[in-house]
Amino acid sequence: MAKVKVRVPGTTANMGPGFDSLGLALSIYNYIEAEETDKGLEIEILDAETKEFLPTDEKNLVYKSMKYLFDLANYTPKGLKLTLKSEVPVTRGLGSSSACIVGGLVCANEISGKKFTMREIANMAAKIEGHSDNVCAACMGGFTVSVNNKDEIFYHSHKMNGDLKFLVLIPDYAVTTQKARNTLPGYYPKRDVAFNISHASLLVASLISGNYDNLLCAMDDRIHEPYRKIFIDGYPKIYKKLKSYGALGTYISGSGPTLVSVVEADDAEFFYEDILDYMKKYYPSWTVRLLDCDNEGVKVL
Amino acid sequence: MAKVKVRVPGTTANMGPGFDSLGLALSIYNYIEAEETDKGLEIEILDAETKEFLPTDEKNLVYKSMKYLFDLANYTPKGLKLTLKSEVPVTRGLGSSSACIVGGLVCANEISGKKFTMREIANMAAKIEGHSDNVCAACMGGFTVSVNNKDEIFYHSHKMNGDLKFLVLIPDYAVTTQKARNTLPGYYPKRDVAFNISHASLLVASLISGNYDNLLCAMDDRIHEPYRKIFIDGYPKIYKKLKSYGALGTYISGSGPTLVSVVEADDAEFFYEDILDYMKKYYPSWTVRLLDCDNEGVKVL
Repeated sequence: MAKVKVRVPGTTANMGPGFDSLGLALSIYNYIEAEETDKGLEIEILDAETKEFLPTDEKNLVYKSMKYLFDLANYTPKGLKLTLKSEVPVTRGLGSSSACIVGGLVCANEISGKKFTMREIANMAAKIEGHSDNVCAACMGGFTVSVNNKDEIFYHSHKMNGDLKFLVLIPDYAVTTQKARNTLPGYYPKRDVAFNISHASLLVASLISGNYDNLLCAMDDRIHEPYRKIFIDGYPKIYKKLKSYGALGTYISGSGPTLVSVVEADDAEFFYEDILDYMKKYYPSWTVRLLDCDNEGVKVL
Repeated sequence: MAKVKVRVPGTTANMGPGFDSLGLALSIYNYIEAEETDKGLEIEILDAETKEFLPTDEKNLVYKSMKYLFDLANYTPKGLKLTLKSEVPVTRGLGSSSACIVGGLVCANEISGKKFTMREIANMAAKIEGHSDNVCAACMGGFTVSVNNKDEIFYHSHKMNGDLKFLVLIPDYAVTTQKARNTLPGYYPKRDVAFNISHASLLVASLISGNYDNLLCAMDDRIHEPYRKIFIDGYPKIYKKLKSYGALGTYISGSGPTLVSVVEADDAEFFYEDILDYMKKYYPSWTVRLLDCDNEGVKVL
């Protein structure tokens, strides 16, 4: 019976001022192995840390996403055995749920006869997830700009050229998306709206053109970071340190608490070593990783 | 004594969702001839229509802008003779004041020894104008993304490749910027903010990448068009007609009342003829022009 293995990247969204729109796939991956069997559902989670968080029954998000596509494809597998291996940390703002959703959908599409295109899969994923920024990046890879328009998403996908690296600083505690969402105001003054429109526009222009002179300015945000940074212990000091060490820009990934610093690839190793020393000394519980942009997106192995 | 002639393009700003940020220079020009003389100020306005609107004394915006730069350059001309010829209509949302400001600054810079770079001139122009979108496009040409950050502007300039043309529909009445500004709300709901951030981002990605598949979606705006379209007679009908004839997107230029439709260059002539027929029949007082993007910006002739 059909067996498939996919690799799906973690993603960073809400990049700077790009609230609910700008996403980027990172070289950190979840692996999903799905095998059609003749008896019920069996889910094995290989890594201890993820095991704590994720259910191994019908409530599992990979399984629920597979079921969503199977239903659309009019396909009913007798049984399923899923084996999950996750590098993407859960509830940290690095798109772990989008990785589960996209990975599950692609597995199910492979098993049920590849009836859907990647655009259709991205649309399904955005419906399940509720927003399009992480799922677009997970599907297409690279840097993605997306719009969630009623029942359809529109997106632009841009492959990054390797000039930039992404230093990811992950605290050892979670901020739930719900809590992070509830802290945002319902209304914003016009000057902040204009601020974010112009800064997000400049950020897109910088990343797509490959001219990073404006990146530090373009990363500024007034829509979510001012309200969410309070959930991140040590934010002002760490932010300042990253800037002084030469980050082209630093932002809260997704709804936090992970921070992402964008750095020039040529300087990245030194930057990484410096920050690693600093974090080990003052914030030893954080995990620091130097990642690339993943340009492939979800991939059948 | 020094004499200079410059050409400066009209510009379209507030493109779709790109409130106060996205601008584009058009192939419609103002010409300014400035000559240093030994007696006072003399301003001649060559075209009858503009003559009605613009003063010919120290209140003239071209002159005031020249004076602004002369003061910074510590230069005092004995006298000045200015000859102005304007294709850009006044108070229609096509950047006529920015054209006057940028043209005046560049003339003054030439006369006083070219002390300032174009970036510095753009910064001065944004200070005089109060916003950066039109002046950046007038200075640099092409499609510009700009941010007005306290005392400094940041911008990205992109040369368009000629794939697109811009159909400009100009009513025969004015909407003052003040009136158009006053009609906007002070606060916007979060969903509209996210809407505009994502749509502006997608618009920038479309125009810079040259992939226009998303343009129609990306042009949608919730920040100013819903409030300003009421000032434009026949807006819903004209908008619908432009869309049905194949416009890739239509938006209110600046704060109105001019409309701009973006069309593929290959289809532009037919589109223009069709719309011209329609407008002549139902809105004969409007002026319709098919323009290119100007990639040069202000230019000393």
